[in-house]
Amino acid sequence: MNDLKSFASDNNSGAHPEIMEAVVKANTGHLKSYGEDEISIHTDEVFKEFFGSRARIHYVTTGTAANVLGIRAVTHTYNSVLCAEQAHINNDECGAPEAFGGIKLVPIPSKDGKLTPGMIAPYLGHVGFVHASQPKVVSITQPTEVGKLYTLKEIEDIVEFAHDRDLLVHLDGARIANACAALDCSFFDMTTALDVDLVSFGGTKNGCLMGEAVIFLNPEIGEGFPYLRKQSMQLVSKMRFVSAQLERYLADDLWLINARQANAMAKRLADKAGAIDGVEILDTVDCNAIFAHIPPAATEILQKDYYFYVWDEHTHTVRWMTSWATTEEMVDEFVADIKKAVEAVS
Amino acid sequence: MNDLKSFASDNNSGAHPEIMEAVVKANTGHLKSYGEDEISIHTDEVFKEFFGSRARIHYVTTGTAANVLGIRAVTHTYNSVLCAEQAHINNDECGAPEAFGGIKLVPIPSKDGKLTPGMIAPYLGHVGFVHASQPKVVSITQPTEVGKLYTLKEIEDIVEFAHDRDLLVHLDGARIANACAALDCSFFDMTTALDVDLVSFGGTKNGCLMGEAVIFLNPEIGEGFPYLRKQSMQLVSKMRFVSAQLERYLADDLWLINARQANAMAKRLADKAGAIDGVEILDTVDCNAIFAHIPPAATEILQKDYYFYVWDEHTHTVRWMTSWATTEEMVDEFVADIKKAVEAVS
Amino acid sequence: MNDLKSFASDNNSGAHPEIMEAVVKANTGHLKSYGEDEISIHTDEVFKEFFGSRARIHYVTTGTAANVLGIRAVTHTYNSVLCAEQAHINNDECGAPEAFGGIKLVPIPSKDGKLTPGMIAPYLGHVGFVHASQPKVVSITQPTEVGKLYTLKEIEDIVEFAHDRDLLVHLDGARIANACAALDCSFFDMTTALDVDLVSFGGTKNGCLMGEAVIFLNPEIGEGFPYLRKQSMQLVSKMRFVSAQLERYLADDLWLINARQANAMAKRLADKAGAIDGVEILDTVDCNAIFAHIPPAATEILQKDYYFYVWDEHTHTVRWMTSWATTEEMVDEFVADIKKAVEAVS
Amino acid sequence: MNDLKSFASDNNSGAHPEIMEAVVKANTGHLKSYGEDEISIHTDEVFKEFFGSRARIHYVTTGTAANVLGIRAVTHTYNSVLCAEQAHINNDECGAPEAFGGIKLVPIPSKDGKLTPGMIAPYLGHVGFVHASQPKVVSITQPTEVGKLYTLKEIEDIVEFAHDRDLLVHLDGARIANACAALDCSFFDMTTALDVDLVSFGGTKNGCLMGEAVIFLNPEIGEGFPYLRKQSMQLVSKMRFVSAQLERYLADDLWLINARQANAMAKRLADKAGAIDGVEILDTVDCNAIFAHIPPAATEILQKDYYFYVWDEHTHTVRWMTSWATTEEMVDEFVADIKKAVEAVS
Repeated sequence: MNDLKSFASDNNSGAHPEIMEAVVKANTGHLKSYGEDEISIHTDEVFKEFFGSRARIHYVTTGTAANVLGIRAVTHTYNSVLCAEQAHINNDECGAPEAFGGIKLVPIPSKDGKLTPGMIAPYLGHVGFVHASQPKVVSITQPTEVGKLYTLKEIEDIVEFAHDRDLLVHLDGARIANACAALDCSFFDMTTALDVDLVSFGGTKNGCLMGEAVIFLNPEIGEGFPYLRKQSMQLVSKMRFVSAQLERYLADDLWLINARQANAMAKRLADKAGAIDGVEILDTVDCNAIFAHIPPAATEILQKDYYFYVWDEHTHTVRWMTSWATTEEMVDEFVADIKKAVEAVS
Repeated sequence: MNDLKSFASDNNSGAHPEIMEAVVKANTGHLKSYGEDEISIHTDEVFKEFFGSRARIHYVTTGTAANVLGIRAVTHTYNSVLCAEQAHINNDECGAPEAFGGIKLVPIPSKDGKLTPGMIAPYLGHVGFVHASQPKVVSITQPTEVGKLYTLKEIEDIVEFAHDRDLLVHLDGARIANACAALDCSFFDMTTALDVDLVSFGGTKNGCLMGEAVIFLNPEIGEGFPYLRKQSMQLVSKMRFVSAQLERYLADDLWLINARQANAMAKRLADKAGAIDGVEILDTVDCNAIFAHIPPAATEILQKDYYFYVWDEHTHTVRWMTSWATTEEMVDEFVADIKKAVEAVS
Repeated sequence: MNDLKSFASDNNSGAHPEIMEAVVKANTGHLKSYGEDEISIHTDEVFKEFFGSRARIHYVTTGTAANVLGIRAVTHTYNSVLCAEQAHINNDECGAPEAFGGIKLVPIPSKDGKLTPGMIAPYLGHVGFVHASQPKVVSITQPTEVGKLYTLKEIEDIVEFAHDRDLLVHLDGARIANACAALDCSFFDMTTALDVDLVSFGGTKNGCLMGEAVIFLNPEIGEGFPYLRKQSMQLVSKMRFVSAQLERYLADDLWLINARQANAMAKRLADKAGAIDGVEILDTVDCNAIFAHIPPAATEILQKDYYFYVWDEHTHTVRWMTSWATTEEMVDEFVADIKKAVEAVS
Repeated sequence: MNDLKSFASDNNSGAHPEIMEAVVKANTGHLKSYGEDEISIHTDEVFKEFFGSRARIHYVTTGTAANVLGIRAVTHTYNSVLCAEQAHINNDECGAPEAFGGIKLVPIPSKDGKLTPGMIAPYLGHVGFVHASQPKVVSITQPTEVGKLYTLKEIEDIVEFAHDRDLLVHLDGARIANACAALDCSFFDMTTALDVDLVSFGGTKNGCLMGEAVIFLNPEIGEGFPYLRKQSMQLVSKMRFVSAQLERYLADDLWLINARQANAMAKRLADKAGAIDGVEILDTVDCNAIFAHIPPAATEILQKDYYFYVWDEHTHTVRWMTSWATTEEMVDEFVADIKKAVEAVS
């Protein structure tokens, strides 16, 4: 089996060895199933240290599940969910919100995947008009699908705007650790303290095998969720093997160390590659995603050895992602190869 | 963390050490995600050795997902699925078939969770009648939810009956390994050779962490399934950690060794406990589930140390299950404690 | 166009001339649409006279819509609805409750389509068990699909039993007028006074063109229903043409006169046909449905001129239904022809 | 009951007297129900004269039902439907396509509610990409929700573009008669001849009480639709009362006469009102919808006597609609009152 030289996605990395070790350690004989085991119960407590004592945490196996189940738990089929047009829920879940929640998504045009109250406001007409889906949730992604960050103040403004209009705020945090690392804040600072209502918490991309969670922060929402999770085929029987990952992930700052590494490697790659003639890094690099222009012919050469995506074929924009498992050596080797490829086609 | 003395469910066991080792071994750096990695591709090939070259295999994380997605892929919302009233899809999936597939289940009364053509026939009226859901699938569970086995001939009869009426046959094989071990036949003998159309293949209860699969044997069904799986929140990104389990599970007869152990331990428990005055083993023990009558007061004593279910409170029937991880020592200790408890209350 | 000699269903009748006249009269120029017109608003008031001032009434065009939307409005997808196995929602709506509500129906065996607390109780286990759909509604049909009546006391007992267990009671009243006529009670007596939570109110079978309603009696349920009705494709734009029917239907005892006629004609048919040698009327005739045994060969002769159903082919049970439009002459002619047919084949 | 002076919607009109007469005439005793009556069967034949012999016609009671059921019948939940952002299915059906079809709508920005191949093309990426909903249908509205017309050539271009990419074309024809009248072509010319795959055919806005239809023109689509319609609560029992409307609507050019009247009255209103100082008619008036700017204070005065909508509050755009029932006198009276109101506030 050949290791892939991948800058395609943080999903291509494996699991952090200490998380894997925690999974192995969890394999100690018979335990209750379906989340009633001691590991899962303890992990809940660990999460509450990070998200506050009123948080309710439910483990699932995919980020799509976290998004869809969380949003579904707080909407009727006659509600709509406002999101940026780039949102994962809008583009990358094969219609799951619509199919399983009957949810109407209202995609709002955005340059960088971010929303502001001013961008949301025009989509809030028709409240009380029986022919129109009724807005219920604003869903934001932090960092966005194109790698940009909301400041805490920007999130706070959205929450205030939303709550003034009886809307809930969902934060898709598939890469929330990268965001917290970049903004140098805690999960609590970014969510509970800002009155965010519910969070999709991602661990998989940052070192877990498969470990995600729906976290309800608003105590008045999410009733009946355990039934919904079971019904949604997401109640794994040997739950300890999921919770043990997250328990370890949250211990000893592992989540932070991993996220910092991913972010630092992205910065290193952007700085070094950006210095190459013929390579243009687009925008600032907020977390662990880099968007760049390089000559299409150079892409062709590089993709013989490296795995990454051409994000936009029309503009020939490429996306490079780093992960907790990306090392300085990998970056430097990649930079050298980019340089060679670009020079070869100049 | 205390190991549980559990005879409640094969779900309470952990993972087989060699399967855990395979997961650890799969953690070797960057690989493509979403099932395009080499481990997943190879595991597909392994499955084809067991189910025939035309089988199409799709990994999911729960048995509920395998059942619901498989059946949903072959039904319209105006179809019905005929099953025994005891079926897992009818009782233990919190309405998932209805909620996510819009599927109408038609539960058929049965003593042991088994169906026969004669039992199904009365429920096939109204074909072509626009007011009635149109029968499309017969779903059988092997072994059944109450631990009983269909003979191969009985399955064959159902398939023939179903196919004559344009119905498909789904086999819920959450414990298919136990069934094959008990009947001393291969997966192929039990499914492909009998023209079963689709199978829910379970690995979790018999030694995996979480490893299940939807297997389409009929080449004409299941089109579009990859989209459906993604949409159903079951396409895990680091798929290698699921497929690696199943790859190892199918190697070196591990599935068979595990299943035989579970079955043998059930037989040992039934034989020894059945010999105790005041304990009555109900029916024969086909696989790894035992149903028994013991004095309610004895149950109370036993449940201080042991974890198991009172299956039917009216008749005070208890269910004891064994797993691949159940040892002779555990059984013998349990039998001794049953004896003590029953004697204490006589 | 030949008038059909039909004893097949009360659906085969047309509309009562005075109801048709009301529809014609409603056609008086421009009015607000979607139920905001004066006719619809007034009809709401009329309904409140019959069902109490707290009743909320929503018009729909089919009985299936009334059943499905009413039940859906009070259930989550993880709830179940308990009903008799003969229930219209279970057999005659092509899976609509499952497809549009994700509702799990739990059909309970019954001889006559009626339920009792004792019959419901065994199906109420697993409350709080995350793997099982959670019971939420008991749905009863009055009169039942096989023409039998609950007494008011029997309904009261079910309501009390249900409410004690946090269950709601839905009454499928597609033929509620026939039931009230037979029991000589008002709609209020049969529903509001007994604390029934919601009602499917049928007008179509008893003289309307298409006029049904969902009526919420319990003030705490059914929030958001207007959105649900619109979304369910049941908010007709020129609503006045539906409400005008029901307004007239409820005026001057027309509903009662029609229902009495249907019931009386059924009694007349049962009495006269039952007196024929070779014809056996099954059970008592509570409303306007008659189930009978006649020689199969006689059925063949009769069906050349008459339209009616063989209800059960195995026992050769035929169903004859009368409607508001059935006259004494029609009955007597039919009886005479039954006599001839039966004699011809003796 | 006061007749409303309405220029708000063609839904505010009543039914054409001759259509009402046809409904009355259909009330002639017992007929088979659920569309098996002679009137419904004959109406099918009438429709085939207009849409070609291979057309399959299914009556429903609302335009939302026609759109949702038609599209649902040809899509999987993992498909997407491309439409203009103004589309009725996107804005005015309270999320019905998502809730009942699990359909993902992809709204495409448009100035006038029209689409072109060039506008659709950028939304067709990700074919075969398992994370993305797969495009299946292009839905166009003729005339659009803002009153504009596609030429036949423009429809043809969209169909050709769509079929080249394995997409189907759905035409939302809630006002198709107005479009045909304006373009002086037949239904056949606008749909069947251009290879449109399916049509939502509207009769209600142009003179029916409630009469809409789903028409499949492509013989390879729509299998199982009768079950779907029943399940969708749209199979009315006394179907003759729906089909009789449409039978009459299509006879003696009534549909055309009505549509021409509506269109002519819109033109008259636009011409006369447009000549008033302070009134600006926006764009050309293609059918029976007029968008105009008048002083907000004039709107206030007018709305004391007239019913119409402020379409866009930011720009103070008003919408005036005419119908088959709008007369020259009504228009002239309205124009005079507009003049007075505008002058009063100048």
